Amino acid sequence: MSKLFADRAAGLSGSAIRATFKLLADPEIISFAGGAPSPDLFPREELEEIAARIFRDKCNLALQYGITEGYAPLADFVKARLVSQGVIRAGESVIITTGGQQVIDLTARALVNEGDVVVAERPSFVGGLNCFRSYNADLRDVPVENDGLSTDALEEMLKTTKIKLVYTIPTFQNPSGITMSLAKRKRLLELAEKHDFYILEDNPYGELRYRGEDVATIKSMDETGRVIYAGSFSKILSPGLRLGFASARADILEKLVVIKQITDVHTPTLNQLLAYEFVTNYDLDAHVRRSRELYGHKCAVMLGEMDRRFPEYCEYTRPEGGIFLWCTLPDRFDSKELFNRGVEKKVAFVPGDSCMVDMNKKYSSFRLNFSNTADDKIAEGIKILAGVIEEAAAQ
Amino acid sequence: MSKLFADRAAGLSGSAIRATFKLLADPEIISFAGGAPSPDLFPREELEEIAARIFRDKCNLALQYGITEGYAPLADFVKARLVSQGVIRAGESVIITTGGQQVIDLTARALVNEGDVVVAERPSFVGGLNCFRSYNADLRDVPVENDGLSTDALEEMLKTTKIKLVYTIPTFQNPSGITMSLAKRKRLLELAEKHDFYILEDNPYGELRYRGEDVATIKSMDETGRVIYAGSFSKILSPGLRLGFASARADILEKLVVIKQITDVHTPTLNQLLAYEFVTNYDLDAHVRRSRELYGHKCAVMLGEMDRRFPEYCEYTRPEGGIFLWCTLPDRFDSKELFNRGVEKKVAFVPGDSCMVDMNKKYSSFRLNFSNTADDKIAEGIKILAGVIEEAAAQ
Repeated sequence: MSKLFADRAAGLSGSAIRATFKLLADPEIISFAGGAPSPDLFPREELEEIAARIFRDKCNLALQYGITEGYAPLADFVKARLVSQGVIRAGESVIITTGGQQVIDLTARALVNEGDVVVAERPSFVGGLNCFRSYNADLRDVPVENDGLSTDALEEMLKTTKIKLVYTIPTFQNPSGITMSLAKRKRLLELAEKHDFYILEDNPYGELRYRGEDVATIKSMDETGRVIYAGSFSKILSPGLRLGFASARADILEKLVVIKQITDVHTPTLNQLLAYEFVTNYDLDAHVRRSRELYGHKCAVMLGEMDRRFPEYCEYTRPEGGIFLWCTLPDRFDSKELFNRGVEKKVAFVPGDSCMVDMNKKYSSFRLNFSNTADDKIAEGIKILAGVIEEAAAQ
Repeated sequence: MSKLFADRAAGLSGSAIRATFKLLADPEIISFAGGAPSPDLFPREELEEIAARIFRDKCNLALQYGITEGYAPLADFVKARLVSQGVIRAGESVIITTGGQQVIDLTARALVNEGDVVVAERPSFVGGLNCFRSYNADLRDVPVENDGLSTDALEEMLKTTKIKLVYTIPTFQNPSGITMSLAKRKRLLELAEKHDFYILEDNPYGELRYRGEDVATIKSMDETGRVIYAGSFSKILSPGLRLGFASARADILEKLVVIKQITDVHTPTLNQLLAYEFVTNYDLDAHVRRSRELYGHKCAVMLGEMDRRFPEYCEYTRPEGGIFLWCTLPDRFDSKELFNRGVEKKVAFVPGDSCMVDMNKKYSSFRLNFSNTADDKIAEGIKILAGVIEEAAAQ
């Protein structure tokens, strides 16, 4: 018998995460492990009204095949919004994707050969890491500091290593909540130009700032087409609709389209019409403001409880936006062991190793999500978690 | 400067097809080139009613993240239907995908290494061929005879060649409309077991039989897990919703799920709920019967016009189901040249080379689609096409 699976697929396994999800199906568990937006923000009545109108007036369009680039009016809206935000210039194009994850996948598939060096942040988003793993990239990492990924560490790596792609979530990073400084963004771009690598700027949380000042996207400063920009409707409208978008240099974007065509032909038409009718008939900015307020409030609730309950040796980020924060304990702690203790006590989070290129070491850090948990449950969960940490410390 | 695109992506180009689509945007053109279902069959009122109910009662479910395997009630429905059709056994599983194309892509990604031999039918579906090309498979073909792919040619190939995967559309094949005989299906399975290869049975049209008797699917006779089965809601409900499904041996299906997770996380939840509510509140079988009747009628209209108008040296298939037929002219004709003449005269079809592993030769065959053209336009288009053929013959 020859080998069943292709080399790129042989090592892929979702079993750890899937086992975790099974644990989390227990309704008594307070889960800070997910990354789901609050359903309180779903525009139920608006979408009900829009759906009725679409099935009445545009049914044949909504249910028929569409073009791979996406429903043109929605792509035009996204383009105009990105232009108004300064992310892209007027002449640049946008394609609509089946969620933001698809942009990562299409980019990896278009650019990354087996063995090519892809640099991710330490820590980074598990869905991004697994995607690059699936193409047998030579996956490396550079640490995330308080002002974003270490460009010094990247420069050091560049002395000996040819890099193909840097994968970054510069704004309200998943999982750390950290935002990269403007200076580092500029430095990263300079390095990309000097050393001929590309940057995938994944920005699903960028609109969710609840304090501080916006920092220019890396894409907005890109003069030479080094940046592939990924955006998403998941955190500002609905993740279940699976709507994302990408912008990049014309030749790269064209390649993403050609690959998307053989992947899923096109993003579901109905979903694109729903989003388009929502943004044209209702006030997306007002909707985003409500999201910011809610998540800012929830973040403050969680941080307040952590300040009150967590032992002093716990360090954690204080994000200015997004839906995650990152907690680091002294080295002697093992986040996986804490996770197991937590689940026993009915509280869950994402242990650090899931967010790492090297998953086989012990990590004393973990990710907490606050976007989809009621305030009293945040308080209760943090109290339990503080107890779990103290219990682990005592042993 | 190092190479921008990965080897797998470098050769991919959608420009020929996309150029064609631009030509076809001309509203005066009678197009037999597409593969879209008739919008007359879209259950507009039913889906309007269902959508209103979903946004009222299940909005949080419909708009939130879902699991990669698919919405369990819909997966259970598909499973029960496939069991009742004899395609799978009671213990087997099903996953929901973002259209049928995604099953091809996930299967290729899971099983096919660069250089692995993948055998397709000659002619075959362009979206399948391009997908295998994108993984740098060593793509070969065997001819489709009147009773399906030539198992003799496959056996001959197996004498010298190790095959990894055979990609077949055995029922109402795209583009030929031909159905593989039961004997050949059994033979294909025997060869797969003897020579250790896998079979991707792509069956988006299987329910659209308008005459003759059903032939057992290859999957239904598979005792050892050699067959990955791909199905779709595109031709029996709506392509714009992008809903497909796959069934395969547990270890293969699990791998497809792990890959799907890093591709698009999950198939849009709303779309899965729409389909589930449709099949549970309305009569899918009755809906499929209406589709069969309409396509049977349209096929008969097209064949009747071809019998009346086409020169005697034209040969074409007489499908028992599906939405395509395949026309073959004497070798001296070039289907690409005919296509260009046709577009000038405002009629379009798919020239044979798009359906071939070797696209660089001339082909005298072409594909005609009849599912989405009004009867009078079918008559008008076939009349024009007959004139185009006669004009080309005279030169």
